[in-house]
Amino acid sequence: MKALYFDGNDPVYRTDYEKPKPSKGHSLIRVLVSAICNTDREVIRGYRPDFRGVLGHEFVGVVEESEDQSLIGRRVVGELNEGCGQCLYCKTGREKHCVTRKVIGMEGLDGTFEEYFVLANHLIHPVPDEIPTEKAIYTEPLAAALEIPSQIHIRPDYNVAVIGDGRLALMITQVLSLYGVDLTVIGKHEEKLSYFKKYAKTTTKTDETFEIVVDASGAPSGIEMAKQLVRKKGMIVLKSTYAGTTNIDLSYFVVNEITIVGSRCGPFEPALELLSKNLVEFPPIELFELQDYEKAFASKAFKSGFIF
Amino acid sequence: MKALYFDGNDPVYRTDYEKPKPSKGHSLIRVLVSAICNTDREVIRGYRPDFRGVLGHEFVGVVEESEDQSLIGRRVVGELNEGCGQCLYCKTGREKHCVTRKVIGMEGLDGTFEEYFVLANHLIHPVPDEIPTEKAIYTEPLAAALEIPSQIHIRPDYNVAVIGDGRLALMITQVLSLYGVDLTVIGKHEEKLSYFKKYAKTTTKTDETFEIVVDASGAPSGIEMAKQLVRKKGMIVLKSTYAGTTNIDLSYFVVNEITIVGSRCGPFEPALELLSKNLVEFPPIELFELQDYEKAFASKAFKSGFIF
Repeated sequence: MKALYFDGNDPVYRTDYEKPKPSKGHSLIRVLVSAICNTDREVIRGYRPDFRGVLGHEFVGVVEESEDQSLIGRRVVGELNEGCGQCLYCKTGREKHCVTRKVIGMEGLDGTFEEYFVLANHLIHPVPDEIPTEKAIYTEPLAAALEIPSQIHIRPDYNVAVIGDGRLALMITQVLSLYGVDLTVIGKHEEKLSYFKKYAKTTTKTDETFEIVVDASGAPSGIEMAKQLVRKKGMIVLKSTYAGTTNIDLSYFVVNEITIVGSRCGPFEPALELLSKNLVEFPPIELFELQDYEKAFASKAFKSGFIF
Repeated sequence: MKALYFDGNDPVYRTDYEKPKPSKGHSLIRVLVSAICNTDREVIRGYRPDFRGVLGHEFVGVVEESEDQSLIGRRVVGELNEGCGQCLYCKTGREKHCVTRKVIGMEGLDGTFEEYFVLANHLIHPVPDEIPTEKAIYTEPLAAALEIPSQIHIRPDYNVAVIGDGRLALMITQVLSLYGVDLTVIGKHEEKLSYFKKYAKTTTKTDETFEIVVDASGAPSGIEMAKQLVRKKGMIVLKSTYAGTTNIDLSYFVVNEITIVGSRCGPFEPALELLSKNLVEFPPIELFELQDYEKAFASKAFKSGFIF
């Protein structure tokens, strides 16, 4: 079958890849659509030097084989982190932080840029019928935005700033706009900010201060801007990851009692709820055949991916 | 009257200092005992380069003059930060973060190393009769420890580590020991750790990981140790301030969803509650006459100060 395989250096388009067989507790999923995440680009750049396998983790598919009869034939999305099931983290609701976890498309497991892949049953979420596939593909990144209200209390009378004007910033902005907060997005590109105007005030700079500042800039400079924007006793949510260390004045955060919250993947069910209720909306995904993967990776669309 | 005055370079013992007069909303307090805080040493070292005035902010005194009749003759302790009363922070319960605040012994207001000083009425807390003066003197640093449970939820089924074996670490350890948590103190000095054995497990190193790690080490290395000790999705409370910046890998905190909470001064009333109920205890304070200030500052006692 067709698969986009990472050989340690480059993605390789293959047509001879073997169709997988699900092991106990796992289902075989036929991929309908799979989207490119920035993390896929980072894997290709060397973020996971030991990974060899099929790339990709954002998908919508149909379950073809499963011990769980209720899943068979269902259109589904799924989570990427499969924990060991035995450790402290797996046993305390923190499976995605399991130290020996496998991650589809990144660590020990083939990903979703292929016709069929396998996923642990407990990571599979059926998609309600009213959500079309081209919207359901946004479940995983939308869940990452929903991790913020999962971690911290977003009081509706707060004012909140989002730093960034990329994809993740748009997901976060749409989610936070539902909470009634006074919301401002601070970006660099006027044309990108135009996407945000429906949900928040937008600006390239501000003298205002905020109770909560979300850094979704993807750049090391984000924390410094967040420090300037956040109120004393306020909260900074860090959504950006990047290589290398950052020099910061930690005493400033102590003296001003600022909280910094690291935030990553989030809950799928609330994301499906929001999609199902049409409470969020995203630009259409640009879809390519798998063999055109170079075009797909080079696409300037809001979101690009593969159709199978 | 007697006062220990900071002239911008050194503390100067004076006997000619003018007795202050309380302005509207302020009381005149006769100092009984005043204790040296590390911050006083930092002021002398140049932490507040613009400050000229009487040092000190930890005290127990008696109100001699006040518009508030209920305060007159009362033995009291008091908070150090006097806000403007008008700004966002003062109006949202964050007076101690007021940008134009005055701070006794540090910023714009004479401190407590003198026979009489004035303090805003709303910062004054009467001391219950059952708390002797030599215990009441610990109210302010104990309040700083109580800021931790004021800011975050300390679940009794958590395990918690405190990094540090100094005064602040002992206050924090005693407070947290009341919350039922599995508590470990990680220090450098076996002899200092002996103070802690009654309240927590003590060690100089550990391979354990913890849901909450409090850095009260006072050293820039504290954050690195805290990072190694804290569990994924756990929380680091920073109590240490020091000059300069620290180089840290922020992505680690994002990927592992760790929260960092800056924590400073805390609530006085809970501190008086704990002292009143004899739920905390501290080594006796070593007291000196004000003119022996050099001996007092050089004292190796757990706590030293002045008697008036």
